[in-house]
Amino acid sequence: MKFSSKIKQCNLSPIRKFYPYTVEAKKKGKKIYQLNIGQPDIKTPEAFFEAVKNFNAPVLAYAPSPGIPEMVQAIQKYYKGIGIDYAESDIVVTTGGSEALQIVLNCILDNGDEIIIPEPFYPNYNTFVKTTGATIRPLTTSVEEGYRYAVREKIEACINENTRAIMFTNPGNPTGVVLTQEEMRLIADIAKEHDLFVIGDEVYREFVYGGEKLASMGHFEDIQDNVIIIDSVSKRFSACGARIGTVITRNKELQQHIMKFCQARLSVPTLDQVASAALYSVPANYFDEVREEYKKRRDTIYAKLSQIDGVVCKEPQGAFYVMAKLPVEDAEDFLVWLLTEFDDNGETVMFAPGGGFYATPDCGKNEVRLAYVLNQKDLERAMDLLAIGIKKYNETH
Amino acid sequence: MKFSSKIKQCNLSPIRKFYPYTVEAKKKGKKIYQLNIGQPDIKTPEAFFEAVKNFNAPVLAYAPSPGIPEMVQAIQKYYKGIGIDYAESDIVVTTGGSEALQIVLNCILDNGDEIIIPEPFYPNYNTFVKTTGATIRPLTTSVEEGYRYAVREKIEACINENTRAIMFTNPGNPTGVVLTQEEMRLIADIAKEHDLFVIGDEVYREFVYGGEKLASMGHFEDIQDNVIIIDSVSKRFSACGARIGTVITRNKELQQHIMKFCQARLSVPTLDQVASAALYSVPANYFDEVREEYKKRRDTIYAKLSQIDGVVCKEPQGAFYVMAKLPVEDAEDFLVWLLTEFDDNGETVMFAPGGGFYATPDCGKNEVRLAYVLNQKDLERAMDLLAIGIKKYNETH
Repeated sequence: MKFSSKIKQCNLSPIRKFYPYTVEAKKKGKKIYQLNIGQPDIKTPEAFFEAVKNFNAPVLAYAPSPGIPEMVQAIQKYYKGIGIDYAESDIVVTTGGSEALQIVLNCILDNGDEIIIPEPFYPNYNTFVKTTGATIRPLTTSVEEGYRYAVREKIEACINENTRAIMFTNPGNPTGVVLTQEEMRLIADIAKEHDLFVIGDEVYREFVYGGEKLASMGHFEDIQDNVIIIDSVSKRFSACGARIGTVITRNKELQQHIMKFCQARLSVPTLDQVASAALYSVPANYFDEVREEYKKRRDTIYAKLSQIDGVVCKEPQGAFYVMAKLPVEDAEDFLVWLLTEFDDNGETVMFAPGGGFYATPDCGKNEVRLAYVLNQKDLERAMDLLAIGIKKYNETH
Repeated sequence: MKFSSKIKQCNLSPIRKFYPYTVEAKKKGKKIYQLNIGQPDIKTPEAFFEAVKNFNAPVLAYAPSPGIPEMVQAIQKYYKGIGIDYAESDIVVTTGGSEALQIVLNCILDNGDEIIIPEPFYPNYNTFVKTTGATIRPLTTSVEEGYRYAVREKIEACINENTRAIMFTNPGNPTGVVLTQEEMRLIADIAKEHDLFVIGDEVYREFVYGGEKLASMGHFEDIQDNVIIIDSVSKRFSACGARIGTVITRNKELQQHIMKFCQARLSVPTLDQVASAALYSVPANYFDEVREEYKKRRDTIYAKLSQIDGVVCKEPQGAFYVMAKLPVEDAEDFLVWLLTEFDDNGETVMFAPGGGFYATPDCGKNEVRLAYVLNQKDLERAMDLLAIGIKKYNETH
């Protein structure tokens, strides 16, 4: 039997593929400070679990394909709160931001098409793009330039007749880059001039640490036919396991194609929609507290990381990741060593190796992504473990 | 901006696309007996809601990509109960049977490939196959031959060098056909001889009315490398809104490709997995009662339907659908008329028009699928409405 040429080009997630090593290490009683995955330790608001407990329909029925009205309206109200008026028909509920991406890319990408994505980027974009038959045209950035990508010449150098869209995570995963208003406007202009879709993956919107207003590509009224917003409750409310996301666009033709997919997969989990709609009723100070907490963590991890000899990194301005260059040749090899051979008082540390965040071969081999999803004390210990690990690894390799 | 040539070939679901008409009709106070969608009215077992209420983790975290161990083990135990020993690593939890299909087809189908599916078939197969770049090779059947398809000559006539798989729903949606053991063996033999995958969509396994033992393509040990089982809690436990499905295969290479997708979409809703695992603890007599109830409904709808002048149908042996030929030229036009212009004492009836269940153009135009998901009394009234509707429609058209 044969397999699809497209799936053969895909790889396991660089964030999740080391899971078997962690299982083995934990079996041996090793404690691992896991900074590999964007799974926050922040409590999910009680509103979610209350809504779940109050659900009392006798039959757990399919939801409407575009989402239950309460969920759609909660999203609509949230966007009104940040100054964007979406109609209910502009909003479709999806099984996580993941499904939103998958659906949208399948609607707009064909065999041989290209999509511009600044690299390093969220590695699952790889699988979602490659299985459409299209390819990623990476806009390469570096730690030395703070991974910034919104530069006209750089973007336009990537555009050709096969280009269909520009996609980026803002605030950035894995880089922590937050676009300025001017940079967002620049991308909007380029998309307009070249007739491209702009896919703004904005699931980390609340996680900005410079006092900025909440930003969205949805604010640029003049390019609303081009704009596609990807969003989710996962990070916003620390509800990753709910798998409730959304795709938003005012492009009517695109909405029609999206609906074909939505109907084919029938619906998004009913109970998680009911409960996620309730999440949007949390008071506004919830975000202030969460933001403050992450800001402290950002400060901690950045301060500690910068002090390690040979590490290169810039202060991230958003999301909850920092990308750094380590003084090792191969971060993946270093990680496996950390999980299988290293320990300090029975403890070790885990990150996501950087290579998988690049489309360009051999890029990012000595880079890593660290998710600052642990409390201050654990983060400090994790960084100490990293420093000790780097030293020992380099002594023995 | 351009759209994908693949999505442009897809259509809205013939089961769900008339939803706007129902909204309009209901606004006008019309009561609709909805036989268009496979949404059972059977109560979801209390075990589901109890598990949900007992969930008390403070953070609703991502689940492991292949599924939570409790859910995987519940599926494993269920299959052991019907005589099939699967390893945990053979089983992957998915967001409904829908995602299971989507993942599998993306792993095995390439541009230009073909997959044999007996028609009429579950219409969402269309979108799942077409978006991979492959095409459906329909094995056409007819109501007159009871929609049976497991005939060597018929199947082999569809095989060519591009054929990758045979896929079928058994018990059948929309036809109610249940394969005999000999027919299943025949398909297994053909798959083996021609080196094809066999995708058995077996989500209606419990819904058989002839006293048969529960069947699965998983029973044929000699072709286990070829076999892919699609399953779900949706129909089995009347838990459609949970969106918990599974894909099962012993093919190790396929499992590796499946895992790439699973990791890319991160995980399946956590809470629905916890609760769906609990569903598998319901006592065995649950199925006896449900089966008895559906059997009565099958008998009712079949008896009433057969009595309508000009209707052609055969008694379905499984699932909860009956496919019938109506004495109208265009079932879709008839349906829109039923929803917009017809009523009898403020009531009307709704079905899924047959055309969308065929890949062959113009096939099934005067056929319909009726889901017997209502209680006896409502089913009887629905069939009376259908009879009155047919008469009035033919008088005025």
